[in-house]
Amino acid sequence: MKVGVALYGVGVVGGGLAEIVAARRADLLGKHHLTLSFRHMVVRDLARPRPPAVDRSLLTTDLEAPLEDPGVSIVVEAMGGLEPAGTVIRRAIRAGKHVVTANKALIAVHGAELEALAAEHGVLLRYEASVAGAIPVLHALRGALVANRIDRVQGIVNGTTNYILTRMAEDGLDFESALRQAQELGFAEADPSADVSGLDSAHKLVILARHAFGRWSSLDDVTVCGITGVTREQLLDAAREGQALKLVAEARRVDGEIQLRVGPTLVPADSPLARIRNEMNAVLIEGDFAGPLVFMGAGAGAFPTGSAVYADLVEVALSHLNPWMGAVWQERTKARV
Amino acid sequence: MKVGVALYGVGVVGGGLAEIVAARRADLLGKHHLTLSFRHMVVRDLARPRPPAVDRSLLTTDLEAPLEDPGVSIVVEAMGGLEPAGTVIRRAIRAGKHVVTANKALIAVHGAELEALAAEHGVLLRYEASVAGAIPVLHALRGALVANRIDRVQGIVNGTTNYILTRMAEDGLDFESALRQAQELGFAEADPSADVSGLDSAHKLVILARHAFGRWSSLDDVTVCGITGVTREQLLDAAREGQALKLVAEARRVDGEIQLRVGPTLVPADSPLARIRNEMNAVLIEGDFAGPLVFMGAGAGAFPTGSAVYADLVEVALSHLNPWMGAVWQERTKARV
Repeated sequence: MKVGVALYGVGVVGGGLAEIVAARRADLLGKHHLTLSFRHMVVRDLARPRPPAVDRSLLTTDLEAPLEDPGVSIVVEAMGGLEPAGTVIRRAIRAGKHVVTANKALIAVHGAELEALAAEHGVLLRYEASVAGAIPVLHALRGALVANRIDRVQGIVNGTTNYILTRMAEDGLDFESALRQAQELGFAEADPSADVSGLDSAHKLVILARHAFGRWSSLDDVTVCGITGVTREQLLDAAREGQALKLVAEARRVDGEIQLRVGPTLVPADSPLARIRNEMNAVLIEGDFAGPLVFMGAGAGAFPTGSAVYADLVEVALSHLNPWMGAVWQERTKARV
Repeated sequence: MKVGVALYGVGVVGGGLAEIVAARRADLLGKHHLTLSFRHMVVRDLARPRPPAVDRSLLTTDLEAPLEDPGVSIVVEAMGGLEPAGTVIRRAIRAGKHVVTANKALIAVHGAELEALAAEHGVLLRYEASVAGAIPVLHALRGALVANRIDRVQGIVNGTTNYILTRMAEDGLDFESALRQAQELGFAEADPSADVSGLDSAHKLVILARHAFGRWSSLDDVTVCGITGVTREQLLDAAREGQALKLVAEARRVDGEIQLRVGPTLVPADSPLARIRNEMNAVLIEGDFAGPLVFMGAGAGAFPTGSAVYADLVEVALSHLNPWMGAVWQERTKARV
């Protein structure tokens, strides 16, 4: 069975996905009798170089036409940012197309509205890649941990800031030098403000909390403090006291309320989060029956993030071929309380 | 919708499952319109005390009658051991019932045969709880990591031996004293030979490898060395050299062949596996696109293991209500190559 896909954005994540789809084509056909067929790849700049797996004849700058193509069943949004991604996703859903996205900012801000819209139109909306890259934490919360009432999730979910704090702690760099190094190595963007301010972690925390606790929190509910004020001396003091200073995102259920915070946090040096170095991510989930679970892995990059997008894409494609299965998965996205 | 379940074995794992099903009844009904209804609970000793969630009127010592009950759609096997568990599971499958089991020895030895039998009869066979307790590693390999060719899995998958090695390393105990302590605390059984010989880890490794590489290996293919020969001095030497000695189970793809080994292994002191203390488990998976992922959590116990059984049970029950979905999941269990 062939399922038509429109890919919006062929940069780091979209390009990685295109390469994964090409690499796993025979495998997917053999295992699931499924072919993911890209029909359009929407870019801003037609002339820019793309990975070899990208069929250049599919490239277009037209945001509308792919949504009008009845051969497209799934829209993968990998542009990032609130717009035009938000408009594309809303129109895709209204056109009866399933959506897979890696867009943490959009989902954190508009996730509740978009999920309601998807439910109304009977399509699936999936965004595993929006949190912690390759780490399948939303899959786990949705499925494998269904036995558990979750009372706490905690994580290092921003690789840039963890890289900076690690270099400051291990090499004695000051914040500015560590940031420059992260930029030179491609772990930080030219404008690192969303990372170092803690905003990116807050986006991911809102999404994690929705799947841990079954309800959407507002970004405004998150108490956020970034790492720009962290000094070398604080990191050294922490180490001397058997602790590590990490940018931790944490959501807890306290007296029926959800409390969310992002900020530099002292954790014991022998705890799992203290050991997460450089650009790696980790998420700790406390289930009432499973006990504490920790998931560690790459939080960003073309292939780790592409791996998560691909998993959603395959799940959605299989469910698309089975309306009943789609209905079950819709149920699963309903509120946990 | 109500799905009838027969539970074989109401000891640690079965009792834990019964409590979880009772605790999550309203939640499951609200989210999935699903009720898991125990119709029989098969035990060896009717008089033995059971957890409060166990309805004693369901207790029976009859191994056959539940399999003849058309109201039973799913058999949960939590007896452990090769027999009578194997006979019960084979008969359940032939009677058209789905099977969920936590039985690592049985699946490691007869998994290939049982999966083929389940496919032949169009039923599902699930055994997440057989490896690493609460850690949803088979779920991850089956679904969320579908983008990846896996070249290596490595783990600490036996809590008893990890507890013993941790106490020897941290408290300077000798093997015998650490084993006695583990037995007193309930982390080791009266007969600890399957644990300390490495056999239990080998069982779990065969199951992990099947989901990582898509084919069954024989238990005979695993090179196994236990921990009875490990001395305090070796652990101290390792620590002095910046390493830790752990009982590691590892499966690798080398030149198209699968190599499997269990044995005391030196790992760098700052690696994730070195930091797994006491009875905790961890599994490292290396995907070609996702990169290395590490999952840590409780590897045993009534509720962690029950949490994994429950996740399988819910998945199977939902798929039972949708034959098409069942067919997709059958496909998913086919060989990865």
